Amino acid sequence: MSADRTDDMNTLAVLGLGLIGGSLALALRRTGAYRQIIGHDQDPGALARARAMGAIDFGHADLAEAVGAADMVVISVPPGSIEELMRRLAPVLPPSAIITDVASVKGEVVRMARQELAPWLPRFVPGHPIAGTEHNGMAAAFAELFIDHLVLLTPVPETSDLALARVRMLWQLSGAEVSCLDPEYHDQVLAATSHLPHVLAYTLVGYLAGHQDQEEIFRCVAGGFEDFTRIASSSPRMWRDVCFANRGQLLSALKGFQDQLASIQALIEAGEESALLELLQRAKNKRDQLLARHKKP
Amino acid sequence: MSADRTDDMNTLAVLGLGLIGGSLALALRRTGAYRQIIGHDQDPGALARARAMGAIDFGHADLAEAVGAADMVVISVPPGSIEELMRRLAPVLPPSAIITDVASVKGEVVRMARQELAPWLPRFVPGHPIAGTEHNGMAAAFAELFIDHLVLLTPVPETSDLALARVRMLWQLSGAEVSCLDPEYHDQVLAATSHLPHVLAYTLVGYLAGHQDQEEIFRCVAGGFEDFTRIASSSPRMWRDVCFANRGQLLSALKGFQDQLASIQALIEAGEESALLELLQRAKNKRDQLLARHKKP
Repeated sequence: MSADRTDDMNTLAVLGLGLIGGSLALALRRTGAYRQIIGHDQDPGALARARAMGAIDFGHADLAEAVGAADMVVISVPPGSIEELMRRLAPVLPPSAIITDVASVKGEVVRMARQELAPWLPRFVPGHPIAGTEHNGMAAAFAELFIDHLVLLTPVPETSDLALARVRMLWQLSGAEVSCLDPEYHDQVLAATSHLPHVLAYTLVGYLAGHQDQEEIFRCVAGGFEDFTRIASSSPRMWRDVCFANRGQLLSALKGFQDQLASIQALIEAGEESALLELLQRAKNKRDQLLARHKKP
Repeated sequence: MSADRTDDMNTLAVLGLGLIGGSLALALRRTGAYRQIIGHDQDPGALARARAMGAIDFGHADLAEAVGAADMVVISVPPGSIEELMRRLAPVLPPSAIITDVASVKGEVVRMARQELAPWLPRFVPGHPIAGTEHNGMAAAFAELFIDHLVLLTPVPETSDLALARVRMLWQLSGAEVSCLDPEYHDQVLAATSHLPHVLAYTLVGYLAGHQDQEEIFRCVAGGFEDFTRIASSSPRMWRDVCFANRGQLLSALKGFQDQLASIQALIEAGEESALLELLQRAKNKRDQLLARHKKP
């Protein structure tokens, strides 16, 4: 028995064994902090793989069986499937269970929880690990995914201190650094730093794929292009869900980006060499300076 | 004496000891294919560093001294400095010298060479190594930069077979794979695969840096963002030069990208979930498929 474990951390249920849920289960099972980790997934293949990889103690295709004994429930299905899962959870979830999720969008998830899981609101701690790769599914999961990554928790006014502390500990045990912010503010910041770049990467690949010279184009792709579009190999389904779940903030970030792009375009058209240089230099300085500041020592 | 060396490969002059010129000198000096490698740079610090790093045999701040004995001259200054360098080269360049360059833009460089170095056109082989990092300067140079990278040569109708063969060999000795294409076509393809992504990356960082929540934003940057904007830490001066040297093709690629972005924006606004999913899926498939095809086995 691990020294970290308390009697209140008995059974963890991970609902959705994809990259995030699977990696979290792998990381936590290593710590021994939970007496048992139960997995749930609609895909029997994912359940079998999670067992084979040592991520879970038991797998249940049946939701009621999966959460029946759970003290802590992690919702790690794609954003578009959360509402239905919450609806199915309500009749079978133990009253004392603490719930968290991992979606890239928080305002919508809070709205769903208010509607579907109202009695659990004091035990609901919305969360978002800023971690991932362009691969997905249980096969891509690995225990180290969250180490030194940031996990944003966005508690609602009803969230109890105890639930927040428990979810914070869950992520810290996985190796992550935890920080709290307001759900709406989260969505605004992530629209700019994550949702917008994903849309741009998909757009660029879509533009090039529609180009008449696409064979030559993809033969000549430079390293910068590969980096730039890596995120366009992410799960289309998840990103479609994110686009719609955070539509307002995303459209506003898109608008801001388009305005900035139009300014740069105007400088190029007008031959404004020194103004363009200044703008590029400012962007470079900003990136170098801010990434340096937030880099681990 | 190396088996690769012939009497015609005596002296190589590298004009401009930045990341590309410096790395090429380092790579070629290792092979022993040239009897001597001469470096030229306006910055005495770059010359001293190149000597200390073992990239060159001699360094000359004076252009006439640098190229006086050269059989092969590599122009590796930023695109905006090429025209003036060519003008200064004309009175001091040996008639038999073969010349190549490394600029990301080829149409403009060909135009400059026709104007400034007309007698050398049969010995001029415009080139562009598709390699680089976001760092620049001699200090960032390394001999392995070109290994397994593509170098595009864009000969003009006047270019002799001998000159093309010599420049091809120069790049192959550095470890690169060489391919030929038309200068204008090169500019069209590179506008889409490299110049446009650079403009987008600078634009994104510029947009975020102007955001009121920039501190929070840069604290929350996801891995995807770092990859996506890596190229925005490239040399602003070089990219300003590229933007103007390839203005026509770049503006046309920008227009194509903006149209594609507007379509995606419209799908998000209209709530067209299945059309958006299809579009994201098509982009992902294309990227996965084409990158797999062009990957080294």
